[in-house]
Amino acid sequence: MQKPSIPKGTRDFLPQVMLRRKHILRTIEKIFVKYGFQPLETPAMENLSTLTGKYGEEGDKLLFKILDQGDFTKKVKDDDWNERNTKSLAHQISSKGLRYDLTVPLARCIVQNQNDISFPFKRYQMQPVWRGDRPQKGRYREFWQCDADMIGSDSLMNEVDLICIYHEVFNALGFDQYDLRINHRKLIEAIAEKIGASQHFKSLTIAVDKLDKIGFEGVAKELSGIGLSDAQLSELEMFMTSKELSNHELNSLEEKLSGISNASKAIADLREITNSLEAIGWKGSVKLDGTLARGLDYYTGCIFEAVIPESGIGSVSGGGRYDDLTGIFGLKNVSGVGISFGIDRLYDIMLQRDLFGEADKSSTQLMICHFDAESRAFGHKMGHELRSNGINVEVYPDQKKLKKQLDYTNARNIEHMVVIGSNEMASGNFELKNMFTGEKKTCTMSELISTLQA
Amino acid sequence: MQKPSIPKGTRDFLPQVMLRRKHILRTIEKIFVKYGFQPLETPAMENLSTLTGKYGEEGDKLLFKILDQGDFTKKVKDDDWNERNTKSLAHQISSKGLRYDLTVPLARCIVQNQNDISFPFKRYQMQPVWRGDRPQKGRYREFWQCDADMIGSDSLMNEVDLICIYHEVFNALGFDQYDLRINHRKLIEAIAEKIGASQHFKSLTIAVDKLDKIGFEGVAKELSGIGLSDAQLSELEMFMTSKELSNHELNSLEEKLSGISNASKAIADLREITNSLEAIGWKGSVKLDGTLARGLDYYTGCIFEAVIPESGIGSVSGGGRYDDLTGIFGLKNVSGVGISFGIDRLYDIMLQRDLFGEADKSSTQLMICHFDAESRAFGHKMGHELRSNGINVEVYPDQKKLKKQLDYTNARNIEHMVVIGSNEMASGNFELKNMFTGEKKTCTMSELISTLQA
Repeated sequence: MQKPSIPKGTRDFLPQVMLRRKHILRTIEKIFVKYGFQPLETPAMENLSTLTGKYGEEGDKLLFKILDQGDFTKKVKDDDWNERNTKSLAHQISSKGLRYDLTVPLARCIVQNQNDISFPFKRYQMQPVWRGDRPQKGRYREFWQCDADMIGSDSLMNEVDLICIYHEVFNALGFDQYDLRINHRKLIEAIAEKIGASQHFKSLTIAVDKLDKIGFEGVAKELSGIGLSDAQLSELEMFMTSKELSNHELNSLEEKLSGISNASKAIADLREITNSLEAIGWKGSVKLDGTLARGLDYYTGCIFEAVIPESGIGSVSGGGRYDDLTGIFGLKNVSGVGISFGIDRLYDIMLQRDLFGEADKSSTQLMICHFDAESRAFGHKMGHELRSNGINVEVYPDQKKLKKQLDYTNARNIEHMVVIGSNEMASGNFELKNMFTGEKKTCTMSELISTLQA
Repeated sequence: MQKPSIPKGTRDFLPQVMLRRKHILRTIEKIFVKYGFQPLETPAMENLSTLTGKYGEEGDKLLFKILDQGDFTKKVKDDDWNERNTKSLAHQISSKGLRYDLTVPLARCIVQNQNDISFPFKRYQMQPVWRGDRPQKGRYREFWQCDADMIGSDSLMNEVDLICIYHEVFNALGFDQYDLRINHRKLIEAIAEKIGASQHFKSLTIAVDKLDKIGFEGVAKELSGIGLSDAQLSELEMFMTSKELSNHELNSLEEKLSGISNASKAIADLREITNSLEAIGWKGSVKLDGTLARGLDYYTGCIFEAVIPESGIGSVSGGGRYDDLTGIFGLKNVSGVGISFGIDRLYDIMLQRDLFGEADKSSTQLMICHFDAESRAFGHKMGHELRSNGINVEVYPDQKKLKKQLDYTNARNIEHMVVIGSNEMASGNFELKNMFTGEKKTCTMSELISTLQA
């Protein structure tokens, strides 16, 4: 007999966890919808040609590849076969892979369906993705992403809306504090230009992205390794001092970078965003963080990162503007901007802080218990009537001792219970017990309905 | 430049289709929840050892296998490699596969988590499954299943509840007629015994399952091929005459099969179910179909099948009781019963009959259009206020010609629109236009809020 197990880094979500996860996803979904985002889903399997080369060499290694159906060795040449070269063989025996994120499939989907889509296209997508990373605490091989993107509009109103969404989501989930930081990729480009390191812009971004973790010393070490001089590094350090730029500091930054067009564009954008937030009467808070870089290659404009302070957990969301995401699939000059929430991290913090509240209650409002066949049948009929009034009801299905039925009701975290006995059947009066508070209340059937509907 | 595409038999679900699919899934989910079912999700990838051998030889071939990470050839012996035997190699280079249905993962999950689950365990699960079938109209390689199962209770109340669920689901989706048939596997077992073909029970079930498609002649041909005599077949035919057993016919069937314990059990169960439905005051309709067999191996009790009449599409749901589903994973004597809805078929019939109604409306209630930067900024502020009142609003993000904004509003199927111009900004009065009816109404901001909240 095989002992059942699941692949490393994957999880079963049992009902209690599912209810919490659904609470998070529905809360976010409702807010995405309020801002006009529409649902999209793409297949779990994509052609490997769609996925390969989009996530760097490391990403390619982490793709889950699907063995071709039937005789998968058919197409392989004898020489290749005999060499047993894993890398070249993989692509000959598998042509599909599991989706690695929701962004590349979005780009692929938009290009493929461009004639059926109305632009600007505001879509949200909440689906699992798969990565063959080494599993560890908080890192899974199957996990959900939860993205909202706006494609085909370069208006900064979109950035403003996304910032508003952050505020609404964190509030709705019960976080009274959040740390939302924005910056602009072109500001980093301008700094790279200023210190004469434009050719190292990508590496500079990747290094600066680790500033929080490794400090400037670590960043400097990394960059000196690829050839930046001490003079360049000390100039860079001057630009990497403030994680919260005041208006005054922004002005001084503008002066230092004057004449560099990327700097003017970035600073104008950031100003427009903060001014718009003020103009619409936004009540949230956002910090201009000149050191925020984000790791992903494709960002070209405003970038976002959100952290829940004192959670001990890294960023719960990130995002940014990309000017040419669909370009790789042949549709040029389509700008987009999007954000992505990390559901697993939000879940962990909410659990830490006991923020699930109602989501931890069973969706079943009432459990009907009984003593024998007759009272069970009576309860079943009652359950049928309550359900026809829109109430979520369970009737304990088997004839078991009352103790067992009560234990089950408690284990399931069901709020209300009635027990049907001969008195109840004769009188039509039922004792409604609140299992959380212990409170009891005698009700007729119609009072039961109105109490549970309330 | 690669032309983007997706694997054969998979689909992108663009927003309009997603809204309809979500409508179906949410409708069913709400009803499952009303009956006390709780959500469960299992990983897309299962160990191949969990999946293999559970779906017959044909099923094994249709499993999507995932290539092991890293050097997948490492464990393969030279001899095996040189032989290029696809079948034996597949299991050496891949240890995981994509889930093929939701039932085997359910059984695996229950056994694995038996100490964390309260029995009876009522779970629903709505997730995609993958099968390497040849794609054709209505058959996909990735499709969703939508299951509700009750595990760990042999009470027939569960069967009654599932029958009630059928009625509620079909009604809620807008089908005024449905054809729900039930039968009992033990009745077929009894018939097999009666005609002296107990050893062929499985083949007999599989053949009878095709009765509707191939007629009794076809069934007889198949069974004579495995050795049933003409006498046996003509006796079988007598039992295969009524697709809707009256009480009278059930009595006569009972007589014909008297002395066969499976028959008494089956008929007693079916009577208890119909009696209970009557006792609770159920308003739906169900037919006792003595010829209903269902193809799946693991059913041992009551079986269900539902068809929407005159749809030209086969069954939209099936299910039944299984006495030993978890036995394959080592947990014996746990009885369960469940049903599964086919979302794609329901979708097709609803589209045929134009039953989506509200689901075809955009979830965005209002589109705000504008003429210039100033009116756009005004609209953006307005949008922010409307959203804070819980209204789903979009503000057209770019400064484009009004015609383009209106076309977009229409293409998106958004119900209401206002256009902001200098008059609106000065007066605070807005003309709310219903894009579906053409109706117009002048509103103040607070009237706009109350109209859209209604």
